[in-house]
Parts: sequence; C-alpha cells; structure tokens
Amino acid sequence: MQFSTEDWSRRLLDSYRDHKGVNIGDHTGLPSKPEVASLCVGLLQLLFPGYHDGGALAKLEVGQITRDRVATLADDFHRMLLAVLGGREEAGPVAEARVKHLFEQLPPIRAVLKTDVEAAFEGDPAAATRDEIILSYPFLEAIGIQRVAHLLYRQEIPLIPRMMTEWAHAQTGIDIHPGASIGSHFFIDHGTGVVIGETCNIGARVKLYHGVTLGARSFAKDEFGRIKKGGKRHPDVEDGVTIYPNATVLGGGTVIGRNSTIGGNVFLLHSVPPNSLVYNAEAQMHVVDKTSKAPHPGCSI
Amino acid sequence: MQFSTEDWSRRLLDSYRDHKGVNIGDHTGLPSKPEVASLCVGLLQLLFPGYHDGGALAKLEVGQITRDRVATLADDFHRMLLAVLGGREEAGPVAEARVKHLFEQLPPIRAVLKTDVEAAFEGDPAAATRDEIILSYPFLEAIGIQRVAHLLYRQEIPLIPRMMTEWAHAQTGIDIHPGASIGSHFFIDHGTGVVIGETCNIGARVKLYHGVTLGARSFAKDEFGRIKKGGKRHPDVEDGVTIYPNATVLGGGTVIGRNSTIGGNVFLLHSVPPNSLVYNAEAQMHVVDKTSKAPHPGCSI
Amino acid sequence: MQFSTEDWSRRLLDSYRDHKGVNIGDHTGLPSKPEVASLCVGLLQLLFPGYHDGGALAKLEVGQITRDRVATLADDFHRMLLAVLGGREEAGPVAEARVKHLFEQLPPIRAVLKTDVEAAFEGDPAAATRDEIILSYPFLEAIGIQRVAHLLYRQEIPLIPRMMTEWAHAQTGIDIHPGASIGSHFFIDHGTGVVIGETCNIGARVKLYHGVTLGARSFAKDEFGRIKKGGKRHPDVEDGVTIYPNATVLGGGTVIGRNSTIGGNVFLLHSVPPNSLVYNAEAQMHVVDKTSKAPHPGCSI
Repeated sequence: MQFSTEDWSRRLLDSYRDHKGVNIGDHTGLPSKPEVASLCVGLLQLLFPGYHDGGALAKLEVGQITRDRVATLADDFHRMLLAVLGGREEAGPVAEARVKHLFEQLPPIRAVLKTDVEAAFEGDPAAATRDEIILSYPFLEAIGIQRVAHLLYRQEIPLIPRMMTEWAHAQTGIDIHPGASIGSHFFIDHGTGVVIGETCNIGARVKLYHGVTLGARSFAKDEFGRIKKGGKRHPDVEDGVTIYPNATVLGGGTVIGRNSTIGGNVFLLHSVPPNSLVYNAEAQMHVVDKTSKAPHPGCSI
Repeated sequence: MQFSTEDWSRRLLDSYRDHKGVNIGDHTGLPSKPEVASLCVGLLQLLFPGYHDGGALAKLEVGQITRDRVATLADDFHRMLLAVLGGREEAGPVAEARVKHLFEQLPPIRAVLKTDVEAAFEGDPAAATRDEIILSYPFLEAIGIQRVAHLLYRQEIPLIPRMMTEWAHAQTGIDIHPGASIGSHFFIDHGTGVVIGETCNIGARVKLYHGVTLGARSFAKDEFGRIKKGGKRHPDVEDGVTIYPNATVLGGGTVIGRNSTIGGNVFLLHSVPPNSLVYNAEAQMHVVDKTSKAPHPGCSI
Repeated sequence: MQFSTEDWSRRLLDSYRDHKGVNIGDHTGLPSKPEVASLCVGLLQLLFPGYHDGGALAKLEVGQITRDRVATLADDFHRMLLAVLGGREEAGPVAEARVKHLFEQLPPIRAVLKTDVEAAFEGDPAAATRDEIILSYPFLEAIGIQRVAHLLYRQEIPLIPRMMTEWAHAQTGIDIHPGASIGSHFFIDHGTGVVIGETCNIGARVKLYHGVTLGARSFAKDEFGRIKKGGKRHPDVEDGVTIYPNATVLGGGTVIGRNSTIGGNVFLLHSVPPNSLVYNAEAQMHVVDKTSKAPHPGCSI
C-alpha cells in the first residue's frame, strides 16, 4: 500500500504554525527527556556504584570508571544548564557554579541516602539485607533522584529538577516534587501512588506507606479568578511520624506533630499535636451475611 | 555447566499443544507489543513535535522529518490493521479508510490536547510553564494516547486501541479505557492509580487527582450466571467537575452534576445534582495521645 | 568547558571506602538488575510464546526457538544462582537442582496461568477475547512472574525472587511479594497500587481491584526495640473472595472468609466469616449545594 501522505503531513505542519505544543528551532532551551533520563541513571550509578550496572564493579577499575562517569556527567549537565539558563545574564559562570555545587554535594547526599537504607532495613521485617533494599526497593530510586533534584531546585534551575523527579515517578509510581524538603532516615514502603507536594517539609525518621498523599487543600486565586502560583500549600510532617497506606493529608497550614501515627485511609485537613494517633472509627462499617442479608451474629465490627 | 535441556523443552512444547496462551502460526492476526509501543511513540512525536525526541527539531528539517514520520507511521499502522482485521470482509479498503481517518484527525486531536495543556497550566500552581507540562506531566501522555485510541475504538478496531492505552498505563500509572469519551480542557494531576472505565462520559473542564476511580458497580449476568459483556457500566461526569485524590465513583447510572466537587477518599454510588460538594464527615476520626491513650485535650477533629 | 573533575571523583571514591551502598569487587554475589530483567522477559516468552515477541512465532520454528530459549535461560539462571549461593556449602549441586526444578515446573505454572486468563475473561465485561487479556492486562505479567518467583522463594533462593517481583512492580504498579501463596483463577483488574504482603495466603477464584492492600498491621519488636524479621504478618483470603478498589486489609490474624465481598475503600483489621459483605456506611457523607451552602433538598446520601 502506498499512501499519499503529503496532504496529511501538510495539515500537521499547518497545525504547528501557532508554535503551541511544538519544540522546533533551537531558541527554546528545553532539555530533552532522553538527556534527563541519562542524567538520572548516571547519578544513580555514582550514588550506588555497582547496583545500577551490569553487576559488581571490578575493584581495580572503579577509580577509572568513576572518573570517566564524573567527567561525562559534568559535561552533559553543563550543556543542559547552558540550554535552560540560556536567556539569563551570565549563564556561563552560573552554569559552572551549579555543576561544581552538584558534584561537591554528591558525597553528603550519599551519606543521607545511607540513612534511608538503614531506615528501610530497620522498618521492614521483609527486608533480609541492605543489598536487597538497594537492589529492589523503589523508594530508594525515588528519594535518591529527589535529593539531587531538590539541590538543583533550591538553586532555581528550571525544568531539569521537575523532569528528574518525573523520571523517577515513571519508574516507581512515587511522585515527589523536587521542592519538598525531606530529612534523614526517610522510608517509603511499596511506594505506588505516593504524592509529596512542592512545599512539604518532612522531618527525620519519617515512614510512609504506599498511596499516601501530602497535598494541597485548595488554591488561592487572584483578582481575575486565576490560581496564584507559589505559596505554602502542602503539609509539614515532623520527626518520627508514620503514615499508613492511602492516608491523605492536605493543606499548607497542616502540621503532623512529631512521633504521630496516621492510620490507613485517614483524610486529614487539620494539624494534630505531637504523639497523636489518628484513625478512622471502624463503627460505620457494616458486615452482613450475603446469604441472609442480616448482620453476622456477634460480629464485633 | 551443560544442562540437557531437551526434556524441559519438550515438556514446554507439549504444553503449547492445546493452543491456549500461545501465539504460534501466522493466522492469529495479533498485533505485537513492540509494534504498538512504536505506534504510540510515533503518535506522541507527531502530536508534540520535539518533546518526545532527543531535543528541539531544527526548523529547516521539521517538514522532512514530519513527512517521513507520517509515511512510516501510516505504513506501520496499515500493516497492523490488515492483521487484526484479517478475518473480515473487505479488510483492505476498511484498513485504508481507517488509516486515512486517523491522520486526518490528528490536527483536531492536537487542538484538543492544547486545551488539556491549558487546563493543567491554569489548574496547578506548581506548573511554571506550559513546556514543563508537556515535558513532565504524565497525564498528557495518557490522554494524548487515549484520545487517538478512542478514535480507533469508535471505528471498532479490535485490540490495538486497548493495547495503546495499556502502553500509556504502564508509562504513567493512569488507566483510561479507549472507550471513555472525554471532553476538552481535561486535567489529571499526579495521576498514579487513576482508572476511567469503558463507558464513562466525561464533560469539559473536568479535573481529577491521582487515585480517582470512575468504575463499574456490579455486573449483570446472563441466564448461565456469566457476566454479560458490554452495557453502560461506568459513571458520567458533567462539565466543570473536580474530583479529589482517591475518590471512587461507581455505576453506570451515576451522574456527577456539572460544577460539582467530590472530596478526597469519597466512595460514591449515587448521582449528585449540579453544584454539589460531596465530602466525608470528619467526625468519625479519632485523635488520641499515644503516650496517654486519652483524646488530645481540645482536639477539634 | 573543561572541568577539573579529579577532585570531585576523589571525594566520591573516598565516600565509597566504608563499603556501604557500594557493589565493588566480585565477592558480593549480587545479581544485577539487567540480568534479572532479562530472566523475567525470557520467562514470559516461554510462558506465553509469541505474546512477548515481535509477533506470532512461525509454526515450523517454534521448536528450535523454544529449545534455544530454554538452554540460554538455564545457563543464565544457573550463573546467577552460583553467584547468590556462592557462600554456601555445595552451591554447585544446589544450583543445579534449583535450575532443574524451575524448568520442570514451568508447564504446571503455565496451566495455572491459563486459569488466571479464564478468571479475567469471565470476570471483566470489558474483555472481548483471551488474547486481549494476555496482550494488555498488566496483572498477568505480575502474577506470571510472581508464580515463578514464589517457586524460587520456597527454595530459599535469596534476592532473585524479590528482584523479579519488583521488576514486575515497576512494569505494572502491582507489588506482590514472592512469599505470597496464591491459588488458581486469580484476577486483578487494573492493578495499579495493589500490594500483597509476604505471608499472605490467597485461595482460588479471588478477584482484586486496583489499590487493594493485603498488608501488615504492626510489627513485633525484640527486647532491643528492633522490629523482628519474619513471622505471619499478612491476611489470609479464602476461596471466592472479591475485594473492591482501594480497600485495605491488614494483620496476620485477619481471615476473609470464603465467598466474601469487601467493598471499596474499606479499612479492615479483623476477620470476617464466610459470605460476608463488608461495606462502609454512606451516612457520613455530606452533599451540599455549593451555591447555597445548604444540603441539597431531598438528597438521599
């Protein structure tokens, strides 16, 4: 079959003319998805050497491999920075300073990620070894990328940090905005469906289960009825808090006090003091015998 | 180690003999997963040129790149159609008409997708630019593929539309059946865990959060106790509705009236009139002091 | 831009010196992620021949293709086993026995997976054909890999089974621990966010929807306040049970009696007898008119 596709192509090209939803021409300075994916993989390889490779790195070669990876990643990241900062004054020196800062901060980020591994090992009876956590727990990939992205976010690098956490979201189902500030010994079990918003502050030793949302309640609007960008919109979670599966905590003024426990499926819009245990009453659940449609005798629920 | 694997192979080959769960021989006419994945990527590249590539497309080359892509995609899609329509009368002319229809509809689909980008920009304070939405919001990939798959679904093309939306589901965690009809200015924030059923009708300017289910309540059975295929099973959502995280709305007779707001974690089996605000009472949540097991003094929840 | 990256590399290499979070040197015996991914794809190709390939396998070649795949996969799996069992006595004979057991069990596992396909076909009105299920239902990939991983788990093979189910989790959003024991005719619709814990026992003809958690309630601690590893921590689900979206069932002593139905969003910490229907009371949901802030007149919810 030979289609005459010229007409279809022309109509598509016509539809590109309004410049909306098109990335054509080299003026836009957008990073590409494959570039960001490659940056993320490179970072994970430096943060946990040998775990994101074909296997263990040979002891004699690890020095050279690391040097090569650092050099390549520095160049790649620098090129992406020049593109996204292109329109700004002094993009060159700024980009250089950003690259320097990133690589100097990788060892401290490694140190914090090791506390996350410890938190998972201590917090999950199913984890037999720390290697199992690094090789198979999706949260470590998500928080590893987010901790680096947060560094870039704080330096006001546009687009790249958000694309990095979205790369991790696609891999893991865990959606952590690069703006969120997260303490040490962080652990998310299972992870699918977790959402952590841009203006969250999360303390140390916080444990989340899958499906937990730390989100916005409602959005302030300007005089034209448009949503205002920015502002504190997401909760704060203090040290030592545990939040069980599918709980939803919303609002910029909401604070979960230290060492509190939030039960599964709880929907919380207000602050709770330290040491709180918050749970849904079970009373409103009905258990009936399907065969008789009567309550089960002596059913305690 | 040299295993004598002949015995193991023979047993597996024996187990293929009942022809169940095997795709052997060229009579079956099934599309392959890699073919469908490649179709989806090609469509996204045509719908948002330069965003699903290694970077911006050069202005001077975009015409030729687009023509090449259209020609390749038309041939690939035509071949897949001939396979899945193989058993039908006049598969040839039908396949040609389907290819023609798809490519003629791509510009109008682009126009609707631009309204989806606008809805995300206006609906999410965290979105700094429209480029950020196209590069990093998973819902746009999901709805982009679904809008094309819905077109094919309405033309009764088997298998391919369902495999397309399932490809997008695997990328994004957003599961929209190709049968669902969805209006303009659609926005899903975060997205993981969203399920939209086959017979949903969704109006314009609808905003969903992650974990929202628009699903079936129960299934009609035939005289032999088997579930009946088909039938209206999923809710309708009118214009301007917002549904917060992890809400579940079920049933083919359920209608969410226009401009309503459904709160997080709500479980809704009935219709609500326009302008409704539906939320779970907070009263049955308990907040106790873990250290004393007594309610927190003055706790308002 | 030429960065002097030597200093950055040196600091990273220094941070590798504590041997935490590093897989350097060939003594560790860890499987690599790409190896495990390749094992999973190879298994799916043997379990459902022609569905995880570029298309249908040619009838004349299927014998040779299968023999080649079995031989390659046996070698690869044997090499991975030798690595992870490296520190044990008689790793060689044990690894051989494990390979033999795996391949002898693939035909029976195929037989059970066919019952899963039937369960999906009979349980979902949207499924038009069994081919559609094999080509586009993510649960089949998840349960296919889990049934094999469970076999390896029961033989106390470390790491590999857990990495296999985590590979499937990343593809599908369905997180089933390899320790879970699952009966025939199993079906998960949609799937994103499902979590099934290590010590679950699930009967035959069980149907789950997306977002269902079968998890642990709390963890026993030892005299030093550390969580005890192991122990029965997750629920049992008897034959014929259906659990609707986003329900959470927790606890090692929790048993869902046969033929019970658990409603959407239910949070259940106790056992229920056979034939139970468990659902949340709708009474505590409020429906108000957003324009007047008064309840909708005559609203029955």
